[in-house]
Amino acid sequence: HIQKYVTKKLGEDWIFLVLLGLVMALVSWGMDYASAKSLQAYKWMYRELHPNVPLQYLAWVTYPLVLILFAAIFCHLVSPQAVGSGIPELKTIMRGVVLKEYLTLKAFVAKVVGLTAGLGSGMPVGKEGPFVHIASICAAVLSKFMSIFCGVYEQPYYYTDVLTVGCAVGVGCCFGTPLGGVLFSIEVTSTYFAVRNYWRGFFAATFSAFIFRVLAVWNKDAVTITALFRTNFRMDFPFDLQELPAFAVIGICSGFLGAFFVYLNRQVVLCIRRHTALSQFLTKYRLIYPGVITFLIATVTFPPGFGQFMAGELMPREAISSLFDNYTWAKYTGDPQILGKSAAWIHPKVSVFVIILLFFLMKFWMSVIATTMPIPCGGFMPVFVIGAAFGRLIGEIMASLFPNGILFDGIVYKILPGGYAVIGESSCLPFSSPGPIPMTFLVDMMCYFNMTVFSPYSFSTLPGKGAAALTGAVSHTVSTAVICFELTGQISHILPMMVAVILANMVAQSLQPSLYDSIIQVKK
Amino acid sequence: HIQKYVTKKLGEDWIFLVLLGLVMALVSWGMDYASAKSLQAYKWMYRELHPNVPLQYLAWVTYPLVLILFAAIFCHLVSPQAVGSGIPELKTIMRGVVLKEYLTLKAFVAKVVGLTAGLGSGMPVGKEGPFVHIASICAAVLSKFMSIFCGVYEQPYYYTDVLTVGCAVGVGCCFGTPLGGVLFSIEVTSTYFAVRNYWRGFFAATFSAFIFRVLAVWNKDAVTITALFRTNFRMDFPFDLQELPAFAVIGICSGFLGAFFVYLNRQVVLCIRRHTALSQFLTKYRLIYPGVITFLIATVTFPPGFGQFMAGELMPREAISSLFDNYTWAKYTGDPQILGKSAAWIHPKVSVFVIILLFFLMKFWMSVIATTMPIPCGGFMPVFVIGAAFGRLIGEIMASLFPNGILFDGIVYKILPGGYAVIGESSCLPFSSPGPIPMTFLVDMMCYFNMTVFSPYSFSTLPGKGAAALTGAVSHTVSTAVICFELTGQISHILPMMVAVILANMVAQSLQPSLYDSIIQVKK
Repeated sequence: HIQKYVTKKLGEDWIFLVLLGLVMALVSWGMDYASAKSLQAYKWMYRELHPNVPLQYLAWVTYPLVLILFAAIFCHLVSPQAVGSGIPELKTIMRGVVLKEYLTLKAFVAKVVGLTAGLGSGMPVGKEGPFVHIASICAAVLSKFMSIFCGVYEQPYYYTDVLTVGCAVGVGCCFGTPLGGVLFSIEVTSTYFAVRNYWRGFFAATFSAFIFRVLAVWNKDAVTITALFRTNFRMDFPFDLQELPAFAVIGICSGFLGAFFVYLNRQVVLCIRRHTALSQFLTKYRLIYPGVITFLIATVTFPPGFGQFMAGELMPREAISSLFDNYTWAKYTGDPQILGKSAAWIHPKVSVFVIILLFFLMKFWMSVIATTMPIPCGGFMPVFVIGAAFGRLIGEIMASLFPNGILFDGIVYKILPGGYAVIGESSCLPFSSPGPIPMTFLVDMMCYFNMTVFSPYSFSTLPGKGAAALTGAVSHTVSTAVICFELTGQISHILPMMVAVILANMVAQSLQPSLYDSIIQVKK
Repeated sequence: HIQKYVTKKLGEDWIFLVLLGLVMALVSWGMDYASAKSLQAYKWMYRELHPNVPLQYLAWVTYPLVLILFAAIFCHLVSPQAVGSGIPELKTIMRGVVLKEYLTLKAFVAKVVGLTAGLGSGMPVGKEGPFVHIASICAAVLSKFMSIFCGVYEQPYYYTDVLTVGCAVGVGCCFGTPLGGVLFSIEVTSTYFAVRNYWRGFFAATFSAFIFRVLAVWNKDAVTITALFRTNFRMDFPFDLQELPAFAVIGICSGFLGAFFVYLNRQVVLCIRRHTALSQFLTKYRLIYPGVITFLIATVTFPPGFGQFMAGELMPREAISSLFDNYTWAKYTGDPQILGKSAAWIHPKVSVFVIILLFFLMKFWMSVIATTMPIPCGGFMPVFVIGAAFGRLIGEIMASLFPNGILFDGIVYKILPGGYAVIGESSCLPFSSPGPIPMTFLVDMMCYFNMTVFSPYSFSTLPGKGAAALTGAVSHTVSTAVICFELTGQISHILPMMVAVILANMVAQSLQPSLYDSIIQVKK
């Protein structure tokens, strides 16, 4: 009889998990599809107006402006709770605080529409944070819907369970990274994680990520259902012990940079709030703030203008995939068109180092202010891009410092031309490139950087919960690192990376709270 | 003031974690070192007696016999609790049942010595399970020792916390896989996992794994501090959607095989217990049982005898690394000596398929009975080897079925010769080999297989805890899969693999409990 009861319960639970996974995969894919089409239209418009620079400029600026303003108005009218990342609020809810209207269907609609518009505008805003919120709403609504058919979903604690699974699914199908999703759901639960949700999260997140990737393959966006930003670096680079000081230095640098990012982000918000007049003015004319920011960012990135010095024409995802390519730009002298999207990084007159550095600096402040706009927007992707740019910069410098490879233990590890040319791909490389070294650094940097921004100390942010969460300090580190691993399909360097990540975190932790916690503090 | 209190507490905790990590890394490395030397001596002895086959046989059988009997006697005299894997007992302790004498210094000594002897004998016994037990004992003893200096370590729940971290460190530094270690520690906690241990586990496991790998590099056992059984497969094999049925079939097969493994293991134990006379006889003469098993296994693997048809001369770790090599044995016709260790798989008269099949079948029953011996022994590694052999078999068959590569979407993905020859390695391949395909299957199989053996349903094994652990069903899946990823440094196929893993688990789950839970049931 107990067996029967169990199977019945598991059965119902199973349906809930599959439904949740399916819905979220469809939403995630639909959002990606819509925003990709929007970006395509944006670029097409810009390209069609080619000889006429003023008209091009107008199009380049107006398009994102319209989308961002639409997102801002829509969110304001439908559900103001949809603004921002949503993870800080979720963390708060998971800690037991009741926040009104955060898990309603209205917020769901506002967030989905607003986020799609935001992503489709090409601004440096991320998908992960809002998507976790969306998945949680979906889980909460779905569980209420399911409880019409059976009373199972009204147990105590069930609400937290539902949200936990929602978080896992959100991260899991946002990028197709189930492992990172589950770890994230553990980290978001600040005190005690119910182990039953571990399995449920895995099941739902895997299912969701799978459907999401299958949809992408079916739509010919992607070739495989494996990693999203696939990297294939040389994996036999036996340089780890010697690299340790480098790892440590990079880790510590990332710590400082990450803390600086969080600090800037908070200062922008606080600064506006401190000027009461400005604050009131912006509250009255809600569209001024996002409008000005969008105008500013679009103007700076305008390709024929300053954008040519910072690969301004690349949309966030294009930037990532081009940063991950297997060439060494610093050494490249041929026709840039062969490089495809990466051609944006080569400027006839300016060194590629300067371009990457400018890209890094510009994207840094742009991401900082873009994430303060009153639209649904996350910080994961922008930070991912910044980290990748930083890594690429170091990698390119490395590659020019050691053009003939590196001597280790009597063997010259030559930075080989086309170490593992993408076999059979039509993009067969007509020239040799010392690839691998920049790449390993890239993933590393991206991980460190993401980590330090979204990192630690959740304790003492909410009164009465401090003590229990005390030692949960470096929590947030791991899920972001794992998401990076899953996104790039590389895990062989996990050990040195974890060491550097812990270092980076210690620095960031002693300087600033995590971005999420910073937002919680600001909003309090 | 609260900040100060926090820092103090964190500070002390930090010292505890570092100490634990350091001690366990040293123990793990020392154990590996001793057992490797023992295996070396074993093989040296066998080789020195070369022309004299009877003497060789005597040496081949006596050496493991002496070691295993020593381990059995030592454990019996010092601490009978040290027998077996230890994970079932730990799971029971974590669920709140008090087991006497399981976490004492005596058990520690018995387990370390017994396990080293067992590993050094070349029998198919694993290190992971006992090592988790060792780490937990170490954590418990260390925390008691620390509490002399300060009272912090006597809080309620602290005991569970210490054991959780111990588990993470145990898995983490056993193979150098911190991520898998932490996931394992979550899974071993059957109901509520304290999130603070997540960070603590990560910190300690990473530190420990790092020291462990650095020791290995320092001792020139390994080239890098990255993955242990490093694989470098082609990662751009865009065959995933088409492969799905194959994935599903393999997953389901693994499910059946895994369940069969657990079933056999339990039947061996129950069968002996059912024959009261036999059982009493074996209890009286304790050394008969391990002696007979060791004699049997050593006789069958004797290389000039039957062992030549099942690569009998390979010790477990050698078998894994040779199974992971980048050649396709079925197509190989040159001088076997170039293959190094893998030469054992090539027999002049017998097809390589038969050899691998025999290896698989033989290792299957050997591992089943070897893990029932009354010495400290785990099942992870033997199952890992069996899974790898099964994967290799399928891979070799695939490679001979498609000798010219695979057509996909208009592009022929040629199974290229030396797709990613190990750059700069002295083992530069003098002949071409269609490598990659067997390899991806290998990792997959190993994962599935490990999963299904160590898999699910912990519920209803312990009365009164059933309800809460209900849905924790497929729990154990994930950490074993993640350990496999970390061991091989490959994560790009995580998504299709997770899907197959869930399928494999559903099968295994509906047929048999996990190996650990099976042992708990048998011991009750």
